[in-house]
Amino acid sequence: MSNKIYLTPGPSQLFYTFEEHFKKAMSLDVGSISHRSKDFVSIVKHTKDCLRELLEIPHDYDIFFLSSANEAWDRIIQNLVIETSHHFANGAFSKKFYDFAIKYGKSSTLNEVGDGQSFKNFEVPAEAELIGLTKNETSMGFTFPESEIEQLRKDNPDQLIALDMVSATPSIPINLSNVDTAYFSVQKSFGMPPGLGVWICNQKCQEQAIKKSERTTIGSYRSLPNLKKLSDKDQTPDTPNSLAIYILGKIAEDMLEVGKKKIINDTIYKSTILYQAIENHPSLSPFVNDATYQSKTTIVANTNDPGKMISYFKEKGIVIGSGYGSHKENHIRIANFVTHSKETIEMVCDLLPEIE
Amino acid sequence: MSNKIYLTPGPSQLFYTFEEHFKKAMSLDVGSISHRSKDFVSIVKHTKDCLRELLEIPHDYDIFFLSSANEAWDRIIQNLVIETSHHFANGAFSKKFYDFAIKYGKSSTLNEVGDGQSFKNFEVPAEAELIGLTKNETSMGFTFPESEIEQLRKDNPDQLIALDMVSATPSIPINLSNVDTAYFSVQKSFGMPPGLGVWICNQKCQEQAIKKSERTTIGSYRSLPNLKKLSDKDQTPDTPNSLAIYILGKIAEDMLEVGKKKIINDTIYKSTILYQAIENHPSLSPFVNDATYQSKTTIVANTNDPGKMISYFKEKGIVIGSGYGSHKENHIRIANFVTHSKETIEMVCDLLPEIE
Repeated sequence: MSNKIYLTPGPSQLFYTFEEHFKKAMSLDVGSISHRSKDFVSIVKHTKDCLRELLEIPHDYDIFFLSSANEAWDRIIQNLVIETSHHFANGAFSKKFYDFAIKYGKSSTLNEVGDGQSFKNFEVPAEAELIGLTKNETSMGFTFPESEIEQLRKDNPDQLIALDMVSATPSIPINLSNVDTAYFSVQKSFGMPPGLGVWICNQKCQEQAIKKSERTTIGSYRSLPNLKKLSDKDQTPDTPNSLAIYILGKIAEDMLEVGKKKIINDTIYKSTILYQAIENHPSLSPFVNDATYQSKTTIVANTNDPGKMISYFKEKGIVIGSGYGSHKENHIRIANFVTHSKETIEMVCDLLPEIE
Repeated sequence: MSNKIYLTPGPSQLFYTFEEHFKKAMSLDVGSISHRSKDFVSIVKHTKDCLRELLEIPHDYDIFFLSSANEAWDRIIQNLVIETSHHFANGAFSKKFYDFAIKYGKSSTLNEVGDGQSFKNFEVPAEAELIGLTKNETSMGFTFPESEIEQLRKDNPDQLIALDMVSATPSIPINLSNVDTAYFSVQKSFGMPPGLGVWICNQKCQEQAIKKSERTTIGSYRSLPNLKKLSDKDQTPDTPNSLAIYILGKIAEDMLEVGKKKIINDTIYKSTILYQAIENHPSLSPFVNDATYQSKTTIVANTNDPGKMISYFKEKGIVIGSGYGSHKENHIRIANFVTHSKETIEMVCDLLPEIE
């Protein structure tokens, strides 16, 4: 790795053990062995076991491997939505899930509020088969509180709830029993290069996929019943991104060693001092005002001159993120992932007041 | 890497420059930089440019990145087939493409002959929108001759022809102007860990996808028009397997340096001595008899005792492939990819007579 520090919201800084695990993978020929071999089956099992423990995935939820969170949106619509879904959107990523449903010809509905705004209306149309929620709207630094997810679960016991955990997990606690399916990509909080997505599904999802398959197509190799058939043998339908699956398991193991509690507490500490530094700064302010809705893993600040901020940090070897989409000219984004040490974030907080 | 040599038909031996390119990618922070950055756009452009030159991809064909050849089957059916396709199958992989079409609810037709047998009937139903061909049936060591592809092109000028190039390209010459779309994954002849697929499409494919989109869904982020929109800017719709895209470009560059002609000639030389050694062996014979149809990159031999062969080579640090599917008990498979040196293949030929 170069000497730069990436505080971008993903792709981001690689986990500090990434290269060590890559080297070990090379010595084990992970990139050459058959994906049907016993050795590879053990790797898949190890990665799923470590993820299950780290993310507290209920025992009756399956864990599948995809290529990205984009693919999770795509396969969720393809497998689980026959007619319509309902989406809560307040930024680019939550909106994109809805857009995918429309592309698939669904008559889906959108509860859209302003960028980074909280939701007031939690009503869900009775005909919606699936509800799309985004735990951490990475484009806007918004977080969907656990209490609101819990209430949505209570109010909609029969509908499927799909939770986007991108850039949120494992840094903040998420109660997966409140949702039926959830997904993330590895280039955010897991500190890996992009190219792997993880998709978690319960049995209600399988039932819905089978129900849909009786009426129309649910795709081919990545239909939920096919993913499950192979996953039950700790295999994958196609030849997967084997190196990434191996390294993800190893990083999850490292994170378990650090400790779930410590990861969550460190995330709180680092996000608290970052928001304080932003609030104390003469020309910065948090984009999301209410602390209840402030993301702890992607901190978004208003600024009149993002270019100046970005350049200043660049000179110090630190890469911070620009605003997303139309906010390129008035936002900066700073990631706070597991691999970002307290020392790094403290240094950022010390440097911030030096820029006017 | 360990000291083992993988002669398995994929995943296989990593290309001899793979680790060097990985190290360089780390020093350039390829796994951390934004997939929308100028640096990453340059990487995508470089990889596409090198592939275009190496594989002689016509200038008006686009190059897209997927996660595997399985995904290419999936997206081809999703984007290009409205009602029906026609598939030539003589092994597990060519058959699987047809199976995917059926899973998508298409009324596709199958021209199936025995495992590894050549085709006698080249008729294609008039209503088939797409014809599925497999250049190299990796499960059976069969190759689809260029002359037959050319004839199919002449006989079916209006239908789309899709060519599976997995484990064939760039080791053998393929005239891509005879087909409308072609695809491969990188864990075969390109000597990379799995997790990346390459999908090549001409403008006729775009037109068919647009035609289909006016009647039904062609999916979401990996619809052909969306892939093209981003690819025209040397970008990808989602955050892709950036490390693999970088390394693929570098390996393609290395292969161009070796020389296309030399790669093809070496492949002929190595496959010739392998088939000779198999023919001269008392208990081995080529599974595909007619040299016209023998794959030069996956050599499949009949044997009464594959376990003995596999164990013998294993003791010497060489991993050869077992038979595919039901042929596990009577076949061995030996890969002949670019990374397998003449010396390695000569050694295998020298060792073969030592096993009864």
